[in-house]
Amino acid sequence: MADYQSFYRGRPVMITGGLGFIGSNLARQLAGLGARVLIVDSLLPEYGGNLFNIDGIEDRVRVNIADVRQASTMNYLVRDRDVIFNLAGQVSHIDSMRDPHTDLEINCRSQLTILEACRQANPGVKVVYAGTRQVYGRPDRLPVDETHLVRPTDVNGINKVAGEYYHLVYNNVFGVRACSLRLTNVYGPRQLIRHNRQGFIGWFIRLAIEGREIQIYGDGSQSRDFVFVDDVADAFLRAGASDASNGEVFNVGGLEPISHRDLVTLLIDVAGSGSVRYVEWPAEQKAIDIGSFYADSSKIERTLGWKPRVRLREGFERTIDYYRAHFDRYVTERSGLAQPSAEVV
Amino acid sequence: MADYQSFYRGRPVMITGGLGFIGSNLARQLAGLGARVLIVDSLLPEYGGNLFNIDGIEDRVRVNIADVRQASTMNYLVRDRDVIFNLAGQVSHIDSMRDPHTDLEINCRSQLTILEACRQANPGVKVVYAGTRQVYGRPDRLPVDETHLVRPTDVNGINKVAGEYYHLVYNNVFGVRACSLRLTNVYGPRQLIRHNRQGFIGWFIRLAIEGREIQIYGDGSQSRDFVFVDDVADAFLRAGASDASNGEVFNVGGLEPISHRDLVTLLIDVAGSGSVRYVEWPAEQKAIDIGSFYADSSKIERTLGWKPRVRLREGFERTIDYYRAHFDRYVTERSGLAQPSAEVV
Repeated sequence: MADYQSFYRGRPVMITGGLGFIGSNLARQLAGLGARVLIVDSLLPEYGGNLFNIDGIEDRVRVNIADVRQASTMNYLVRDRDVIFNLAGQVSHIDSMRDPHTDLEINCRSQLTILEACRQANPGVKVVYAGTRQVYGRPDRLPVDETHLVRPTDVNGINKVAGEYYHLVYNNVFGVRACSLRLTNVYGPRQLIRHNRQGFIGWFIRLAIEGREIQIYGDGSQSRDFVFVDDVADAFLRAGASDASNGEVFNVGGLEPISHRDLVTLLIDVAGSGSVRYVEWPAEQKAIDIGSFYADSSKIERTLGWKPRVRLREGFERTIDYYRAHFDRYVTERSGLAQPSAEVV
Repeated sequence: MADYQSFYRGRPVMITGGLGFIGSNLARQLAGLGARVLIVDSLLPEYGGNLFNIDGIEDRVRVNIADVRQASTMNYLVRDRDVIFNLAGQVSHIDSMRDPHTDLEINCRSQLTILEACRQANPGVKVVYAGTRQVYGRPDRLPVDETHLVRPTDVNGINKVAGEYYHLVYNNVFGVRACSLRLTNVYGPRQLIRHNRQGFIGWFIRLAIEGREIQIYGDGSQSRDFVFVDDVADAFLRAGASDASNGEVFNVGGLEPISHRDLVTLLIDVAGSGSVRYVEWPAEQKAIDIGSFYADSSKIERTLGWKPRVRLREGFERTIDYYRAHFDRYVTERSGLAQPSAEVV
């Protein structure tokens, strides 16, 4: 397993959603390992793609602007790739409830399109899919391992489940090797922080940097696990290089759970700015709240040797340093200001 | 619960896929209970819709030919209905693997379309969705209850999962009351028997009636449970009339499991014709075989008082009598003959 990094030297790989948060951090690691990286990204305005995310590596990667919904384009692009890191997606569960059909097109239909393209044009490829812990919904037990029931609570979660299952079926039935990483709350540099519709952690970080107030619903006793984006990228590298992952799903979670209260306290402490206020649960938020959630990631440790390494304080330091240095690259408009508190999922 | 039948007197209901196998049998029961039945069906050529299925009740139901993929049509049709029995679907898992995008359009996207139509134009409606035991895939334990992991093994199963989850989310988040019945192997009059791509039981019945050979893969020791279509229709009636079903999934299975060997022996005995031959598993069939499967239906019994009533011998007698009387209405072309043995799922 020590060899998974040298596996990528000179190897042609593709990253869908490669200008986004996780995709671009993965691209940076792959470029560093000498892979031949093809980034595919739609740069849809409200999504996470950002050309600045590949600042400094632009000469070592190839960028192809394309939408994964475009079948003929995908049919062409998947050819001759050894590994596809399949991260393109609509990641806002709020948007998925406002416009469920668009979420379906991107998270469900496009996954079929990509897999069909592989089956027809590149059946020897390995595909690593970015799944999500949202597929579990409100957990029956903690920590949540991969034997937990799948029970998504919103349209985005449903479509992500379907996208994941397609990968497993194409692995099992058509031999297009594939696996899924069910990511918990990922944080770090290069995340979208322009608005708060793609999860709360990036938004909280922005609020702290701006010295603004962070609102927590209820008493903040709910727990989550957070995983630094470099650790997540490492999980993708390991999964892409190993056939032990074929047909499997893996939780990719953080070192240990932390309550929202302690999370925000730590964040404000590291940032040296920002404040916290506890507010009543809005009724519609309370209705879809899933309580505490944290993942058991022992399966990926057993199978691929992956473990999270970056502790939350260090991760926050690196993230805040990054955004302080490049704030204007990530906050180019004042969208999202109407909703000072993020929806916590 | 005794009142669930009188609930339907004079009540406006809609059945998507209402000219199909289960939909038409349900329509017949609803017409008998005095409901105002609107049947919506696309009559797509290779699917199960058949106008003869409503022979004798055509004056007591209204038929609207439409495709559930047509959003504007669905927006109109869902209005003023008290209950929607949502049975329209692409039910061939073989077809789903050949043409996954069509399966997605019908089983996934159209479900969103119907639910969005309800949310916008008829939020007080109750929707009962026809789910499938295929969502469970290869079972970890027997009998399979609703706490079993969902792990579909083909594209059809995945899209049916997504369609089901949409219903639950619209129930939980938007208050559009909905539930899902996970049907096991349903058999009875009015099933499509023109080809063998929609499950093996109807096809076996046809082969027996025609005095042809039924092929069983391996030794036929695998078990399934079979449920007669009238019992299934009764489950839909109970689910549609009760708010205890809201947001829930229920297995709807047969009285007891039976091996393929015993099933075919019984079928040939009842039919007085047909023969059986045991053949080697084709490799590609063996690869996707799920072994034995039978459902634990105690949840729907506890919650809605439903139990299967028709024993297999009686069900076969009624089914064979029906097809013998109306064979030409169901076998108008000799499609499917190239594949004498059905794919067993």
